[in-house]
Amino acid sequence: MPKLESKQSNKVASGTLTKYSFPSTSLGGLTTNFNLFLPSSASSSSPVPVLLYLAGLTCNEDTGAQKGGFLLTAAKHGLAVVMPDTSPRGAEVEGEDEDWDLGSGAGFYINATADKWKKYRMYDLIVEELPKVLKEADLGLDLTRMSVFGHSMGGHGALMLYLRNPNLFKSASAFSPACNPSQTPWGKKAFNAYIQPCTRSSPPSEWLAYDSSRLLARSEIAKGDVHILVDVGTGDQFLKDGQLEPDALKEAAKENGRTQEEVQVRLQDGYDHSYYFISTFASEHVEYHANFLKA
Amino acid sequence: MPKLESKQSNKVASGTLTKYSFPSTSLGGLTTNFNLFLPSSASSSSPVPVLLYLAGLTCNEDTGAQKGGFLLTAAKHGLAVVMPDTSPRGAEVEGEDEDWDLGSGAGFYINATADKWKKYRMYDLIVEELPKVLKEADLGLDLTRMSVFGHSMGGHGALMLYLRNPNLFKSASAFSPACNPSQTPWGKKAFNAYIQPCTRSSPPSEWLAYDSSRLLARSEIAKGDVHILVDVGTGDQFLKDGQLEPDALKEAAKENGRTQEEVQVRLQDGYDHSYYFISTFASEHVEYHANFLKA
Repeated sequence: MPKLESKQSNKVASGTLTKYSFPSTSLGGLTTNFNLFLPSSASSSSPVPVLLYLAGLTCNEDTGAQKGGFLLTAAKHGLAVVMPDTSPRGAEVEGEDEDWDLGSGAGFYINATADKWKKYRMYDLIVEELPKVLKEADLGLDLTRMSVFGHSMGGHGALMLYLRNPNLFKSASAFSPACNPSQTPWGKKAFNAYIQPCTRSSPPSEWLAYDSSRLLARSEIAKGDVHILVDVGTGDQFLKDGQLEPDALKEAAKENGRTQEEVQVRLQDGYDHSYYFISTFASEHVEYHANFLKA
Repeated sequence: MPKLESKQSNKVASGTLTKYSFPSTSLGGLTTNFNLFLPSSASSSSPVPVLLYLAGLTCNEDTGAQKGGFLLTAAKHGLAVVMPDTSPRGAEVEGEDEDWDLGSGAGFYINATADKWKKYRMYDLIVEELPKVLKEADLGLDLTRMSVFGHSMGGHGALMLYLRNPNLFKSASAFSPACNPSQTPWGKKAFNAYIQPCTRSSPPSEWLAYDSSRLLARSEIAKGDVHILVDVGTGDQFLKDGQLEPDALKEAAKENGRTQEEVQVRLQDGYDHSYYFISTFASEHVEYHANFLKA
């Protein structure tokens, strides 16, 4: 197992925020960073549940920690928060740093299959490698109790990872998520590059495997057992631009016979896509997950 | 009066955060920015109290808004928060952008008297011009009820502005403030440049007029009427480096016959100088000021 290197540590909310790095097998050996908030109650003999936060385009492992406003509520409930980076760094792919919505800062939490992007395997990093690395490091985390939330691209990540791995995560929530990325501009650009170009009107199955609306429509999770909370601001420019499509998620929930309690999609009047929106509802999301993580 | 220009607006904590700019007379005509958080309850007919937040070295009007974590509590108590920039910008002083602790981002909330820095008049901006501009703009603020808080250089600013203007502010609080800047490196560097060089062992009166410990020691505020709260982390590197000197403030309080209730100086175990520290205690500071602003 790779060794975690501690890069920085700050006391916050009576607990400790530590930035770790390690060479990631999933990312072809590239070093990746994550932040871990550990509440003061955590110990090897009394491990705490884990909330995974996935940030959006252009962000990194620091964004949620600095601007999200969820650490005090996590501390109150004795939850750890793991905040990974949003993409590999330094993969040396041509054009990697040119676009804000492709390459660096835009890993989309998927496994790239296109040879050019072969180190872009954030899905494996988050779902397989990171939990193993955390377990091995014996930091006081109970990795059998995990939930996931995120923002925008990270909201897509949270919903998609949860729907594909309902045994790994107890619940998922998202701020302003891209709910239907196989049909919307950011997702199409990323999937075209990372997976395979699609010129047909209906996307290939390889794309659909990363589309939360499609995954929810076909979900085989037992009746009553889906736990999803989504908040979207009505003043969000990306909602207006057709990047988010929360209605597609609502339609999928209906198609799959889910109740409104299982899949809560809330429109928040006047809020936009920024961390000001996230910080306003951060506590509610942490409380939501605490229900399932502490049950 | 100069006209306020609205540059950006975000909904947050059920209220609105707006970035304004205006050409400042105090700053020799330079355009300056500030952020205003207005709770949803504010209106011309029902104006709300104002909490002024002063950020530290290298920061600007956005830092507290994005990382401070105090807007939700301000909203809860119906308080506006005004967050000015930390210095003039673009004054075109030679060397202005070279040091992180002098010039841009380092206005120290004083009036420079050295000719070279003549546009560095943040004291006048904050104490005189900004309140006038806010009043004129009729934004729903009750400027007869103001308190002030800040961080580091801005903590120095908050304490100093309050002690010099007890009729303008109901209370002051600070995270990791430079309590004795006429005796400590940041302050001495700034005062040497902005005011006048001092080679003697005892600083000139022009320096002492901006030193909170000195101001408190000589304060003529009525008995029982000083309202100061200070938090400093014991893990703060700048505390260890002798930049903060909270003991000097405590000594001054004693010398001036103040009770520990009037001047509360708290050491917080293990916290450092970062916004992680501020965000942990932000709510307590806002609650503290709410006591006096809503009385």
